[in-house]
Amino acid sequence: MSSKQQLLSPDPPLRVACVGGGQLGRMMALEAPRLGIAMTFLDPGGIQCPCAQIVPHDRIVKGGLKDADQLRAIAQNCDVLTVEIEHVGVEILQELETSGVNVQPSARVLTIIRDKYLQKQHFASHGVPLPPFQVTSSVQEIQQAATTLGLPLMLKTRKGGYDGRGNAVLESNTEQAIQEAIQKLMPTSDQQQPQPQENLDIYAEGWIDYQCEVAVMVVRSSNGQDTVSYPAVNAIQQDSICRLVLVPVRNVSMDVRQECERVAKQAIDSLGQGASGMFGVELFVTQQGQVLLNEIAPRPHNTGHYTQDACAISQFENHLRGICGMPLGTTKLITEAAAMVNVLGAKSGTMADTLKSSNRAMSLPGAVVHWYGKAGCRAGRKMGHINVVGDSQEQVDAVLEELLALEGVPVSLMPGGKLHGSPLVGVIMGSQSDLPTMNAAVDMLKKFDVPYEVDIVSAHRTPDKLMDYSRSAAGRGIRVIIAGAGGAAHLPGMVAAMTPLPVIGVPVKTSTLSGVDSLYSIVQMPRGVPVATVAIGNATNAGLLAVRILSTSRPTLRQQMMEYQREMKEMVNDMSTKLTDLGSDEFLQQMDNKNKAVNV
Amino acid sequence: MSSKQQLLSPDPPLRVACVGGGQLGRMMALEAPRLGIAMTFLDPGGIQCPCAQIVPHDRIVKGGLKDADQLRAIAQNCDVLTVEIEHVGVEILQELETSGVNVQPSARVLTIIRDKYLQKQHFASHGVPLPPFQVTSSVQEIQQAATTLGLPLMLKTRKGGYDGRGNAVLESNTEQAIQEAIQKLMPTSDQQQPQPQENLDIYAEGWIDYQCEVAVMVVRSSNGQDTVSYPAVNAIQQDSICRLVLVPVRNVSMDVRQECERVAKQAIDSLGQGASGMFGVELFVTQQGQVLLNEIAPRPHNTGHYTQDACAISQFENHLRGICGMPLGTTKLITEAAAMVNVLGAKSGTMADTLKSSNRAMSLPGAVVHWYGKAGCRAGRKMGHINVVGDSQEQVDAVLEELLALEGVPVSLMPGGKLHGSPLVGVIMGSQSDLPTMNAAVDMLKKFDVPYEVDIVSAHRTPDKLMDYSRSAAGRGIRVIIAGAGGAAHLPGMVAAMTPLPVIGVPVKTSTLSGVDSLYSIVQMPRGVPVATVAIGNATNAGLLAVRILSTSRPTLRQQMMEYQREMKEMVNDMSTKLTDLGSDEFLQQMDNKNKAVNV
Repeated sequence: MSSKQQLLSPDPPLRVACVGGGQLGRMMALEAPRLGIAMTFLDPGGIQCPCAQIVPHDRIVKGGLKDADQLRAIAQNCDVLTVEIEHVGVEILQELETSGVNVQPSARVLTIIRDKYLQKQHFASHGVPLPPFQVTSSVQEIQQAATTLGLPLMLKTRKGGYDGRGNAVLESNTEQAIQEAIQKLMPTSDQQQPQPQENLDIYAEGWIDYQCEVAVMVVRSSNGQDTVSYPAVNAIQQDSICRLVLVPVRNVSMDVRQECERVAKQAIDSLGQGASGMFGVELFVTQQGQVLLNEIAPRPHNTGHYTQDACAISQFENHLRGICGMPLGTTKLITEAAAMVNVLGAKSGTMADTLKSSNRAMSLPGAVVHWYGKAGCRAGRKMGHINVVGDSQEQVDAVLEELLALEGVPVSLMPGGKLHGSPLVGVIMGSQSDLPTMNAAVDMLKKFDVPYEVDIVSAHRTPDKLMDYSRSAAGRGIRVIIAGAGGAAHLPGMVAAMTPLPVIGVPVKTSTLSGVDSLYSIVQMPRGVPVATVAIGNATNAGLLAVRILSTSRPTLRQQMMEYQREMKEMVNDMSTKLTDLGSDEFLQQMDNKNKAVNV
Repeated sequence: MSSKQQLLSPDPPLRVACVGGGQLGRMMALEAPRLGIAMTFLDPGGIQCPCAQIVPHDRIVKGGLKDADQLRAIAQNCDVLTVEIEHVGVEILQELETSGVNVQPSARVLTIIRDKYLQKQHFASHGVPLPPFQVTSSVQEIQQAATTLGLPLMLKTRKGGYDGRGNAVLESNTEQAIQEAIQKLMPTSDQQQPQPQENLDIYAEGWIDYQCEVAVMVVRSSNGQDTVSYPAVNAIQQDSICRLVLVPVRNVSMDVRQECERVAKQAIDSLGQGASGMFGVELFVTQQGQVLLNEIAPRPHNTGHYTQDACAISQFENHLRGICGMPLGTTKLITEAAAMVNVLGAKSGTMADTLKSSNRAMSLPGAVVHWYGKAGCRAGRKMGHINVVGDSQEQVDAVLEELLALEGVPVSLMPGGKLHGSPLVGVIMGSQSDLPTMNAAVDMLKKFDVPYEVDIVSAHRTPDKLMDYSRSAAGRGIRVIIAGAGGAAHLPGMVAAMTPLPVIGVPVKTSTLSGVDSLYSIVQMPRGVPVATVAIGNATNAGLLAVRILSTSRPTLRQQMMEYQREMKEMVNDMSTKLTDLGSDEFLQQMDNKNKAVNV
């Protein structure tokens, strides 16, 4: 590993050769030219591969990913050699490395990762939290594992597994069940020929009853810079294929989210020298909130595609930066919320059906279509993906609702089993008797088209709900809380004590002290915990304040607020004209008549 | 023009041919594959042109942009023919259109635009506000124009002008001065040969003493959908070349910004059928705040490059969507602030010097490098650009500071002549006597690293300043205002009446009524204008509330707030441990001693 920082070198360009010319290579190649990098690809499809549409054809080499001669050929004229898939001729890469080729990530790292059992062993020996596992190279050992680790048992092939292939669930410990599992994992072309009983390339993993699957993209530069991670995301699978990614991760606490990012970085750092570029890290969050490593991929990953549109620097650019020894780019989100939906070949296998979600996405706000240019379409094949970015989870979910339906992804797979789980503003009150006051806030949110939720949360009668609500709000996507209460009005202040979000307090008017009690109770908060207090009984202003707060990062909303202020001015100007036209006596009389008419 | 909506068609791909294979074509070609579009380019550089690095070479045709045979060749196998520059063989495109080729934008539209005098005439006849102009095809007519329109007079060639070439300023009306101007506009290869005196392809424009130059990117689809615009931006020139773009536009009022976007859309709509794809619209804002059209370009434009990183759908994608008749993509910003800096060939003409700003940008947060892959480097040549995105103008400006220095762009060219003009929070107070209270807010903003400004603005003693401050704050980039006042504390409410931003009011404690007067004055605002009021004298909470408000769109800040809350908890827990350890008497005594020590 060189610890030198690589500078940009566009003329002549820095040459990166990539083993594999599928969609991952293609998306790298679409970012490379900006950085003055010229890419070459080795792919069995030759000029039929997705990369061939976007590079000159003298930079496409046709050949198998384990083909020694062709691997040597692409290595010959490059500055860096990388991979877009780990199932390649690693032994040849090792040999090339020895002869001086700059292989990133290194052959040693690829050797550890491509064999999932070696991968597990490596991480276990470095203290990375993992599900229990053991090697099972014979039927007998599988039976033993089922006893040690329990049933159901997850059996996996050590090498070559991908998108659910190479995984089998063992539900019972009979020899027949084991034979069936082996058959699923390593199908023989000849059904008559018996399965081998020994030297199986299989290992077993204890069953994890997880709450959700989380993915974290991690990047490391060969220049020795600190490892950085993108934010944790929900990686939602259907039939063992990634279907949907939600960003940032939903329905887990901030602590769990940080633990996911910590474990992911720990895992990649443990790989040491030669671990460069992007790594996709898949994790389980157990029902008890424990974070366990599932597996990693030494390259850009399907769960990181959202970075193309939700981050300033995508995983593809950061992969190139990392393997070339350039400084790493920022991994921060530049949008509040994002999602990615994979576009799979439709069940019918026709292009017309497969294109339905992408065609719809072209008209949906914040949706960006990424088509892979694969020749031919078949059911279940990854043909492209659609990224969605938005100012709120609610906005993203409104777009997802249509896309999931078109892609046949049931809403039940969403965290919490539903869409639209996360409006921007939470309106809560201590009692239903506060609703006539508080509804004016809801009216304003409706007027400005801001998604909201309304609930009763009493500090004194439902203290547990108060804590749950306050602590979960930010993680659910709520951005402002409006809380109304009267008398010993503790609700707004108590909520503010348990959330980092801005809390707006509405002092509800009381019969005993006209709401002065509520006002003092809400506004006189101690140093450290602010409540944004509005006038007694004036929930209209609470709604408007929530809109102003959200508008600090939403120019359209700011525009609408200016419109509203203009309307108010015009209303008062109209009254002024009427008053000066009619004179004060006549004006008062008309007001009086109007009030009488209303009261009849 | 077809009014049919085009669907995605990746297999076989939709074929778009483009006249010109420079950086604009290249940036289109980098977005096309995602949409299943295959592009072909005609360029005199052939496979040396920037586009040749990113498409197979059977899709590069070598030839002049007015070469009839080659134009016919690229038109032959395409679904849509477009341009990346307007100085092309429009007559041939007209002929191709007649024979059934789908030219977008149409030859008629290109004919109007490429001749700047025809362009002016067209817009004038459609009521688009313009500087005064007249055709001046002889020296005599130039002299007449100088009398009618006054001096200095701007002379421009009707065709072929670009990046300041084709413009000359006439300072005096002598024949010598005019001859010199003509020489500058239409240099003859032979210095001995006299300049022509008649049939000059020149027109004159009245001199505009503008406040700033603004650009608006406008897009129209050939499917008949409504025209939409990206937000107005500052287009800052140096030596007549675009150097810097700031997004959204700074130092103009919201009204002027809207007028810029209105004029830009009006201009493009006036072109009628055949006006499709992107249009770059350059505008002047006069010292009086009037918006005048300068000129337009019928294609993606340098002032729209920021859309690659600051919008979900870039100008390049929207150009393709527009010319192909696909639905237009959203033109909203997805970041709060952005900028673009052009990377020009260094004065030394060496690549190493030219790369300095890009190499530095690789390590700057929010900076994205876009290199054009041009063969060879010479002083002043557009070699690439750097986009910068950020959560605030302040954040963007911190990055710009370094890039402008490296690119040799003086800070004096920035609006208002300075960087860091726009912090996120404005802290104001009615009097310097409020500062001891209000400084606690500043302390909190410092603690959380939030950029701020502090000033004295008195509602009763400086009412004009109050209005200026309130009305300009949002446009300058301020996102939250903290206002403190005591007694008849009108400042927070009056500010809130004149800004769409959230205003936090701090009631300053008074000697007469202990601040209850201030509290009532600030919190009891009428319906329609909210002030977020905190406890009497508690400016700490005002600072914290500002941080919570900004954190609604800044996850890192939210994280910091949670850390702060954790620290507070630990401090109280420490006290609790001490109290239970020492017992209350001993604890009180220690506190007492400590206070005595402080008071000595």
